Amino acid sequence: MITLKEAAKLILSKDNIEILSHRSPDGDTLGCSCGLAVALQSIGKNVKISVSGGIPKKFEYLYDFVKKQDFESEFIISVDIAAPSLLGDLQSEYENRIDLCIDHHSSNRIECESKLVDSTAAAACEIVYDIIKLMNVEITDEIATCIYTGISTDTGCFRFSNTTPKTHRIAAEVMQFNCGWFDINQKMFEIKTRSKVRLERMVYDTMEFFAQGKCAVIYTTLKMQEELKLDDDELEGLASIPRQIEGVLLGITMKEKSDGTVRVSVRTNGDVDAAKFCGKFGGGGHKAAAGCSISADLQTAKQMLVKAAEEFL
Amino acid sequence: MITLKEAAKLILSKDNIEILSHRSPDGDTLGCSCGLAVALQSIGKNVKISVSGGIPKKFEYLYDFVKKQDFESEFIISVDIAAPSLLGDLQSEYENRIDLCIDHHSSNRIECESKLVDSTAAAACEIVYDIIKLMNVEITDEIATCIYTGISTDTGCFRFSNTTPKTHRIAAEVMQFNCGWFDINQKMFEIKTRSKVRLERMVYDTMEFFAQGKCAVIYTTLKMQEELKLDDDELEGLASIPRQIEGVLLGITMKEKSDGTVRVSVRTNGDVDAAKFCGKFGGGGHKAAAGCSISADLQTAKQMLVKAAEEFL
Repeated sequence: MITLKEAAKLILSKDNIEILSHRSPDGDTLGCSCGLAVALQSIGKNVKISVSGGIPKKFEYLYDFVKKQDFESEFIISVDIAAPSLLGDLQSEYENRIDLCIDHHSSNRIECESKLVDSTAAAACEIVYDIIKLMNVEITDEIATCIYTGISTDTGCFRFSNTTPKTHRIAAEVMQFNCGWFDINQKMFEIKTRSKVRLERMVYDTMEFFAQGKCAVIYTTLKMQEELKLDDDELEGLASIPRQIEGVLLGITMKEKSDGTVRVSVRTNGDVDAAKFCGKFGGGGHKAAAGCSISADLQTAKQMLVKAAEEFL
Repeated sequence: MITLKEAAKLILSKDNIEILSHRSPDGDTLGCSCGLAVALQSIGKNVKISVSGGIPKKFEYLYDFVKKQDFESEFIISVDIAAPSLLGDLQSEYENRIDLCIDHHSSNRIECESKLVDSTAAAACEIVYDIIKLMNVEITDEIATCIYTGISTDTGCFRFSNTTPKTHRIAAEVMQFNCGWFDINQKMFEIKTRSKVRLERMVYDTMEFFAQGKCAVIYTTLKMQEELKLDDDELEGLASIPRQIEGVLLGITMKEKSDGTVRVSVRTNGDVDAAKFCGKFGGGGHKAAAGCSISADLQTAKQMLVKAAEEFL
């Protein structure tokens, strides 16, 4: 493991830098790559960003800050990537070529010369922000926008348990710039498409309670997805719905898949261990958020899950 | 107007202090009164809190921090109270007896000897926090909990446009104590009762779009309220629903009342002026949030509002 200072010095010693973000990129991995790219370009470095599958429309505003440059990479940095498989389509080309890995996942399994992993950071953007300051690069509105996006999206706007005093201190610092924090939060957390609203209505209609109200189950069917022409982005976020109901400790979200399986997302409150519950079905994850797959139709899968939940709680 | 230092000195010179919160108390006014009471009791002052209608269950955890003391008040402080009418049942007894007014509403109309109104503060708790520090009172877990509650609830968890770098700096400071910030946000923003969920489903079923999707209208009927046995607390928050839909600039929420009128809440995005729109119906408010009342049945009121919206947008 190297220090923040060593990472800053190492990056400053290079001129042609490529930054890798993880597949299905989120606000944190793109906040890191775009923020670092803008910072390094401002002091004359050549920088490019590579990401499997490209930049989602929602985050294009970050990538627009980056000058598009063509050059041969001399130094490769991965940001917010916990494992080689998360490189997606870039895995075979890049997994053995990473020079510096910057991340905040304690489970990080990237193999490379220099690693800087700080699992106390709520977002990898917190680490990138420290590095940018240590490089004595002047913070700009664009860099502030990238950093705010990363920390706000990775903490659910300062609500998730990973949030720390440092998260708020960095927010205070970048908000002194014109970082568009209000619009970012509106876009990420408030505004819903009409089809998302229709989906939520349908999903609420499927909600059932078990185990004296401590378990709530919702589901989406293939028919619902077809009817609403939903992309995966819009299916995100449903998993948090059952856990929001007062008294629910174990919230189960089932998604009917075209291969005859049911994808299950589990979210828990209090001391209930989601990973342990999903382990009963060959799945896993974190304590409050885990998942598994069941080879069965929706009704059978529901019965299996409800029976397990009643025993578990 | 007096300064923070003068306010701190003034309070320190008194021994028997009564603090007033506003009627229908929220997290900010109770965060202020309870936080200040705990701070002053810790240095030997007698302190009691008065509030019209008592403390809502949701905020009892704040009031539980305060030692219940009985004495004759020598000095009366109002916190987060913008106008005498907001004293509720306490108005006639107290409106001419307030010695110090601490508030963050630019429209403040409390008349008293000493006023400390800072409209740049996102929450009145920001001002109270500064005063507590200036009095050299040691911050405790209990005080931190009161202050965090005030700033988080008054900023929608750091999302509303009133949030400032200072708001985040104070959050960073109080989070260094055991202030229960995670549970506070869960309780205030995440957890919904089952009847709230049923209400939201019903309300979503009433949603209609007008003016090329720029206006969305929802409503609650007397029948829905009866059926779900809802209290006013659960009806809160509905007004934000129509504005959350992508493309909506003017969100209208109508509430059928038993006196034959319709209560209208308007929320807007972008440059659309909610107060100006409500002014057409004799109402008013702020640019992004305003209201009015219409003496008509629901369907007639809707037609009037939709016609006005189509002309307005």
